[in-house]
Amino acid sequence: MKYVLGAKCVKCGKEYAAVPHLTTCSCGGILDIVYDYGAIRRDFSPKTLAGNRDWSMWRYRPFLPVEEGSPAPPLRVGWSPLYKADRLAHALGLRTLYIKDDGLNPTASLKDRASSLAVVKAMEAGASTIACSSTGNAASSLAGNAAAAGLESYIFVPSRAPKGKVAQLQIFGAHVISVDGSYEDTFELSKASIFRWGWYNRNAAINPYLSEGKKTVTLEILEQLGWQVPDYIALSVGDGCTIAGAWKGLKDLYAAGFIDRLPRLISVQAEGCCPLNRALQTGKPWTPMEENTLADSIAVGVPRNPDKALRALEESGGMAINVSDREILDAMTLLGRTQGVFGEPAGVTGTAGVKRALEQGRIPADATVVSIVTGNGLKDVQSGIKAAGEPMVVRPDMEALLAAFAAHGIDPKERMI
Amino acid sequence: MKYVLGAKCVKCGKEYAAVPHLTTCSCGGILDIVYDYGAIRRDFSPKTLAGNRDWSMWRYRPFLPVEEGSPAPPLRVGWSPLYKADRLAHALGLRTLYIKDDGLNPTASLKDRASSLAVVKAMEAGASTIACSSTGNAASSLAGNAAAAGLESYIFVPSRAPKGKVAQLQIFGAHVISVDGSYEDTFELSKASIFRWGWYNRNAAINPYLSEGKKTVTLEILEQLGWQVPDYIALSVGDGCTIAGAWKGLKDLYAAGFIDRLPRLISVQAEGCCPLNRALQTGKPWTPMEENTLADSIAVGVPRNPDKALRALEESGGMAINVSDREILDAMTLLGRTQGVFGEPAGVTGTAGVKRALEQGRIPADATVVSIVTGNGLKDVQSGIKAAGEPMVVRPDMEALLAAFAAHGIDPKERMI
Repeated sequence: MKYVLGAKCVKCGKEYAAVPHLTTCSCGGILDIVYDYGAIRRDFSPKTLAGNRDWSMWRYRPFLPVEEGSPAPPLRVGWSPLYKADRLAHALGLRTLYIKDDGLNPTASLKDRASSLAVVKAMEAGASTIACSSTGNAASSLAGNAAAAGLESYIFVPSRAPKGKVAQLQIFGAHVISVDGSYEDTFELSKASIFRWGWYNRNAAINPYLSEGKKTVTLEILEQLGWQVPDYIALSVGDGCTIAGAWKGLKDLYAAGFIDRLPRLISVQAEGCCPLNRALQTGKPWTPMEENTLADSIAVGVPRNPDKALRALEESGGMAINVSDREILDAMTLLGRTQGVFGEPAGVTGTAGVKRALEQGRIPADATVVSIVTGNGLKDVQSGIKAAGEPMVVRPDMEALLAAFAAHGIDPKERMI
Repeated sequence: MKYVLGAKCVKCGKEYAAVPHLTTCSCGGILDIVYDYGAIRRDFSPKTLAGNRDWSMWRYRPFLPVEEGSPAPPLRVGWSPLYKADRLAHALGLRTLYIKDDGLNPTASLKDRASSLAVVKAMEAGASTIACSSTGNAASSLAGNAAAAGLESYIFVPSRAPKGKVAQLQIFGAHVISVDGSYEDTFELSKASIFRWGWYNRNAAINPYLSEGKKTVTLEILEQLGWQVPDYIALSVGDGCTIAGAWKGLKDLYAAGFIDRLPRLISVQAEGCCPLNRALQTGKPWTPMEENTLADSIAVGVPRNPDKALRALEESGGMAINVSDREILDAMTLLGRTQGVFGEPAGVTGTAGVKRALEQGRIPADATVVSIVTGNGLKDVQSGIKAAGEPMVVRPDMEALLAAFAAHGIDPKERMI
């Protein structure tokens, strides 16, 4: 790995060689991958990148901790669209808003970025089997990416995981263990099992390579913005690994001279489960919370990556915004109706947070904001119906249709523009 | 429209000017858009295309019937991945197989290609409202693409449409009319309503522009293959518009000198609803059938585009393959487990047909085949669960896990490679 110097504990600073089977520090702290930015800067620039025709996350190889000879995994992960969302911006009273639709990844969430990287590292480690616990998306992304690469997978999900995600796991042929308990219970059982059988570990808070995959989302955003740095990047937060990864990507770009300043992060959590935001808001160490939100992907009462997440927020001068489940459902329809993007509840939570932050005057109306939609709404159709309601049912004749329009207050007249 | 000469009826040959509000011929026949291939050939080549950095279906503008000044709609449609599916090919006993995963379009189906084009034509027509009937995917794609562009939409779906697709419609803010009847009933009610209120018509069998959008799937496949022509392209068939569009794309490339031969098409229908295949197999005119298949997107007993579809099959020397619902469900897990692609039932029907054709010796094992996955499995999670089963549920402790592994015959040992 030409540009990787090693790994370093974010808690005690202890250094490690970047072997494929890297986990946590002996002190319990999470490791961070350290790069030789001088070397990256020497070999690599926005200009060299512009000539790269690999339109996937693997276009950022110099920033990724994989061996040069390792092939990219089969599924095409990354280079999801960044939409300039003028209609949504207008609805929110914001000047400039971009929506990064990461629900268009192969298994329909941002987590594909981490799983794609995990598959490479598992292969570098010579493993035949890879495992994780997950609220759902890491699971389905691991199952899909592993299947395409010919690896076996063991996946631990809490039994509350939405049907769409479980169906993906089953279709991808994973060994799925639906744990009748909380996410915390699920995580602990996966940890014990991984230790017992020696599977490659794809738990993002244990394996430091995974947030390196996730960081490609901000590498892409900045390249798609032509290296113009937005004022804010908003995203939903559960375990903390995604926001930590997003921040790592930004710091990498800054250190390698691709950008000249850093945006501020907006961490959005559900009111019913916001241990990390509460820590930031109160200035006290985080403590566990119950998992009371329909945004299942961020219903994490015991976040597994608090140190990196809180450090990212602190370093970026970031802010913590909590939103209600009602605001999350409203953001689903708002994104759908103005921008044609269908996000799952946790996927749109970042956007709900932008709305709340604007209402509270915590971000100015003339700011440039990027909101990352982290997962596709098709994964959780029940919440979609809950947000937007059921359609009118009509007998197949015109009279019935006219009556239904009248009952719903719909005027079907065409108004030529 | 620099390269469009006009439109021509596929039945009687009558010619029309290519106005935005074009529908069917006075004889009832469907129209086909006619291009000036000499002019395309003069201005445009694989080489000019290679320099185009628009990685969406709109990179093929010279082949599309839109005004030069018309902006592309907001959602990024097209340039879905084409995977060389070696593991799946091996499982099928085929030398070379490619999977085109069109379920990764913005609203998760190939229909986005037609809807993106429809949005442009509606805007060129000055319409504020656009409407269609659909078994589901045309509907959700129209709703999403219209919403992003700021158009209103009226969507007629049969009440059997899967929840995932209906949830999309509702989220995108369409006026959804769920018709308590067959697809035929649904189509007729939409037709009467469109006539009554003068909405822009996105019914693919009436509006000849739409299969021009769909054809971009084969334009892409050929570009992704470096203009090397495969022996066969397999896809599922319902109304007949998609296979007609796929064939039009291939003929365009041939006429413009981008490719030097044409592949054969494989039309795959469900045994329980195969009116077009039955016509091809018996040599008799098509007659309606019942809609007995779980592959809802192709459960079309009265196909609306039989002429173009049958002509495409005839011209390409194509073949008709019918598959059972069981074979469709098996294809869902086969694609998932070998390639990490989750298709909806109609989405994987093409692949089920490739398997059947190989088993029957109708295509040789050393052929090069492309199978198009037309829609994402997340749209129809019930069928996914039906195909792949439910996961094991386990209490959160190791003893329970060991018992569950034993009961399921799972040996969790890691086998280092």
